[in-house]
Amino acid sequence: MKLTILIHCKDQTGIIYAVTDFLFQKGGNVVYLDQHVDKEAVVFFMRLQVEFPNGFSNAEFEAEFETLLAQPYEMKWSCHLEGVRPQMAIFVSKYNHCLYDLLSRHRSGELEVDIPFILSNHTDLAYIAAKFEIPFHHVPISKETREKAEEIQLELLKNSQIDFIVLARYMQIVSSTVIDQYPSKIINIHHSFLPAFAGAKPYHAAFKRGVKIIGATSHYVTEALDAGPIIEQDVLPVSHTHSIKDFIAKGRDLEKIVLSRAVKLHVERKTMVYNNKTVIFM
Amino acid sequence: MKLTILIHCKDQTGIIYAVTDFLFQKGGNVVYLDQHVDKEAVVFFMRLQVEFPNGFSNAEFEAEFETLLAQPYEMKWSCHLEGVRPQMAIFVSKYNHCLYDLLSRHRSGELEVDIPFILSNHTDLAYIAAKFEIPFHHVPISKETREKAEEIQLELLKNSQIDFIVLARYMQIVSSTVIDQYPSKIINIHHSFLPAFAGAKPYHAAFKRGVKIIGATSHYVTEALDAGPIIEQDVLPVSHTHSIKDFIAKGRDLEKIVLSRAVKLHVERKTMVYNNKTVIFM
Amino acid sequence: MKLTILIHCKDQTGIIYAVTDFLFQKGGNVVYLDQHVDKEAVVFFMRLQVEFPNGFSNAEFEAEFETLLAQPYEMKWSCHLEGVRPQMAIFVSKYNHCLYDLLSRHRSGELEVDIPFILSNHTDLAYIAAKFEIPFHHVPISKETREKAEEIQLELLKNSQIDFIVLARYMQIVSSTVIDQYPSKIINIHHSFLPAFAGAKPYHAAFKRGVKIIGATSHYVTEALDAGPIIEQDVLPVSHTHSIKDFIAKGRDLEKIVLSRAVKLHVERKTMVYNNKTVIFM
Amino acid sequence: MKLTILIHCKDQTGIIYAVTDFLFQKGGNVVYLDQHVDKEAVVFFMRLQVEFPNGFSNAEFEAEFETLLAQPYEMKWSCHLEGVRPQMAIFVSKYNHCLYDLLSRHRSGELEVDIPFILSNHTDLAYIAAKFEIPFHHVPISKETREKAEEIQLELLKNSQIDFIVLARYMQIVSSTVIDQYPSKIINIHHSFLPAFAGAKPYHAAFKRGVKIIGATSHYVTEALDAGPIIEQDVLPVSHTHSIKDFIAKGRDLEKIVLSRAVKLHVERKTMVYNNKTVIFM
Repeated sequence: MKLTILIHCKDQTGIIYAVTDFLFQKGGNVVYLDQHVDKEAVVFFMRLQVEFPNGFSNAEFEAEFETLLAQPYEMKWSCHLEGVRPQMAIFVSKYNHCLYDLLSRHRSGELEVDIPFILSNHTDLAYIAAKFEIPFHHVPISKETREKAEEIQLELLKNSQIDFIVLARYMQIVSSTVIDQYPSKIINIHHSFLPAFAGAKPYHAAFKRGVKIIGATSHYVTEALDAGPIIEQDVLPVSHTHSIKDFIAKGRDLEKIVLSRAVKLHVERKTMVYNNKTVIFM
Repeated sequence: MKLTILIHCKDQTGIIYAVTDFLFQKGGNVVYLDQHVDKEAVVFFMRLQVEFPNGFSNAEFEAEFETLLAQPYEMKWSCHLEGVRPQMAIFVSKYNHCLYDLLSRHRSGELEVDIPFILSNHTDLAYIAAKFEIPFHHVPISKETREKAEEIQLELLKNSQIDFIVLARYMQIVSSTVIDQYPSKIINIHHSFLPAFAGAKPYHAAFKRGVKIIGATSHYVTEALDAGPIIEQDVLPVSHTHSIKDFIAKGRDLEKIVLSRAVKLHVERKTMVYNNKTVIFM
Repeated sequence: MKLTILIHCKDQTGIIYAVTDFLFQKGGNVVYLDQHVDKEAVVFFMRLQVEFPNGFSNAEFEAEFETLLAQPYEMKWSCHLEGVRPQMAIFVSKYNHCLYDLLSRHRSGELEVDIPFILSNHTDLAYIAAKFEIPFHHVPISKETREKAEEIQLELLKNSQIDFIVLARYMQIVSSTVIDQYPSKIINIHHSFLPAFAGAKPYHAAFKRGVKIIGATSHYVTEALDAGPIIEQDVLPVSHTHSIKDFIAKGRDLEKIVLSRAVKLHVERKTMVYNNKTVIFM
Repeated sequence: MKLTILIHCKDQTGIIYAVTDFLFQKGGNVVYLDQHVDKEAVVFFMRLQVEFPNGFSNAEFEAEFETLLAQPYEMKWSCHLEGVRPQMAIFVSKYNHCLYDLLSRHRSGELEVDIPFILSNHTDLAYIAAKFEIPFHHVPISKETREKAEEIQLELLKNSQIDFIVLARYMQIVSSTVIDQYPSKIINIHHSFLPAFAGAKPYHAAFKRGVKIIGATSHYVTEALDAGPIIEQDVLPVSHTHSIKDFIAKGRDLEKIVLSRAVKLHVERKTMVYNNKTVIFM
């Protein structure tokens, strides 16, 4: 029985001792501990993994943690039992490279999630969902139907008890209706090195500006477009010999790798969000 | 006798043949040729190195090149005899890392330039100039004295027949008075991955945004702040564990390497500027 | 009508002029030219793209090129008409990540080849071939049957007029019987930064050595194991926190990207081999 | 009063709790804790920073730590009071780039060490020592005088109470006489991506092999040549266009950056050595 615990709270004297003492009293053996203090924001972050060789009651543990630690220290915290697979929905539009990448990782056992469905505003990628035998929902979206479409999305998400959503080059803006239900639980890939080239057509903008490096950024979706907490970024060199088409082709490799890394970090409970930034544990 | 020739003009049929034919007629042997066509802008760029085993008159060559090639094809071009060392001025303020880096490269023979002087609006780095036995000019600058200071700068530049200027973390804005005299001949280092975080305090801005990669950018100075043609960029990964102070320390390594690479490319006549972008030959 | 021409020969005075002059006489317009001289080996390499706006006879062109250029200059050369798709065979074993990556790129139009078949010594990946509707040949191999298996392979290759072979984590050694038929035409991916960790289990060896960076290398297959001409390499940082399993997972991303880049360079005729090294044109 | 503590021992249940409990009892406040378990070797590593707001006796602390923690858990451990500057000797030969880099970092306050002297088997770099006003010892070395020279070295090291040695492109082999006095305390920079190209002339070997990436490696010196625990590595892309001279010039930038990073990690007590590998804390 292995438990991953994530904690953040105001930085205070004695927290590490208080938590390790509590776990010791409960018969837990800390097998991993990483912590971080944001000295500017005076916030403490900790991620622990704890084994309980002599049995463990989840309900009792959570209740006592809440009373004895979380309340006195005003912690925000969560804990996750090993082996519980998160339910992940994938939203796509017409580009297939990120979808292929996620599904082939899933198939090879690298991504320990269930994928109850793939959703798209187009039908172009239905054939990939079919290849991988994953249900595909076509929810078209337009200015007029946006509200209705989001209702359908929310219902699908709820019915499948989705834990988090991956926007794998889903070219639509997700509104607060959905974001509010999935705070820090919608992962997007943007095809630029944010904050450079936010918004539409970043490769065109990068080409015009004559940059020598292009990038991709995976971030949690917030209401501010392309401005949510960054999870992962990576870059590739380019030169004057590359056309916009070359940027796009090279960028595909970045996008799929960066998105998959971010999804893995999220699935392994290695991300914490604070002040529109992320703490990424190793 | 080796000549480096840089050419750009509207893309036209038969240019490569016309140039190589002309050089052949003049007894030249092309030992290097690289060319590039910007298909969007329909502009042709070429860099050649030519050896003349049977003697060579520079004046005659330039006159004929102008008449037989440059005028018919409406070329902009320049040619550079091997062994002529460019005169490079360095402008600094208080930070020493880029200056040390340039001077130690110069001393070890890596940078084939002369450095007639170092100029600064402060006296902090005069001791380094003294260590390396290079004249140091202190030209203080303030809102009121800016105009007068720039006059002094221009006079110093003119007296030493300076070919190009390196701003090695010179924290002052260079005005059009100086830029107009040195178009595409002033090289700046900006401590961010442009166009992200242009302007003041880029490391603070990068920290606040929570980026996972920081960068540095070397570019030719134009009147638009931090918006000139990019010569070279590089990046380093950062994480939540790094403070602003860490960003600054890591950034110093980026800045000095990126600036020195850009200076070398310029000195070796490997850069061409067009449409606020650069072509960088290999 | 666009032609790509690759040339290499002993470095001699006047070659660039000779070639461009010949092309001009044939009515060709050089739209791209890149050349390289290996000064140690005194060998000249050139890649050109030429358009023939006024018609073009391939047979006549090749005959005259041979007589007027190739023979006098003792060139090795090849030329390739735009639009002719190479026939690419993929050999795999049990790992699926490189195969998925190649096939999804092929499907999205990024790889301009035909894939007549996938061959494996196991049946594990037959389902992927089926998903992508590509013929799958199961050719088991063992010490005893190696010779017979290679005969079957050669027959399959011949029947499909295969131009080149990609070993997408094919865990078998390819013998000279096959290599001799496909010199510089078999592309392998090795999961280390060669020449470090050649041979079996490179991630285990890298872990034991405690390296801080892992790599992958794509190279042409020669008889010397993992010692052929390197086409492309890339690396990723690792740390003490990563297990061998982590190395393997991270390595998969490297392998598929590096292999695909190498395949693309080969397909676009951007590689030339000399002295067990490659020249890679941009 | 801030203390950095480094611990390693066999992995056992309850260590984190035992240590944090002990520190709590001593009035210490843990402000940083990072730990690592090497699951293969079953070894536990921990780095802590502890503040003692209510006073602190170093002798008493060390005695109790030894009795109550180190002995029962069979720990190897060390502790370091903030503000104690390590004494660092630099050994050089004829190349100046690493020396310039270290000294300019030292001068700008980035490296918090004292540098009692620079030692060389040549006098070429004495002028740099003079520029930076650091004593310079010339200790020539030859096959016949090696033993005597090492005696002189050891005496110089002892007289200046040197804590660790940086070999900044010192081209001599350091024998066990010196290594035994400075186990895991001599930092070397090797100009290749180890374990590839160990030994002499790595850039020549890399050029011959046709690699597409070159590297540099900083490691602790052990008796096995270029085979000690790796602290830091970095790489740069190269291509067929680069000569050996280019490799060497590019490599200089790698060498100085990689060496300086390794020295900083060592100075900040972020490195631990085990099984000929390093644990590098963040």
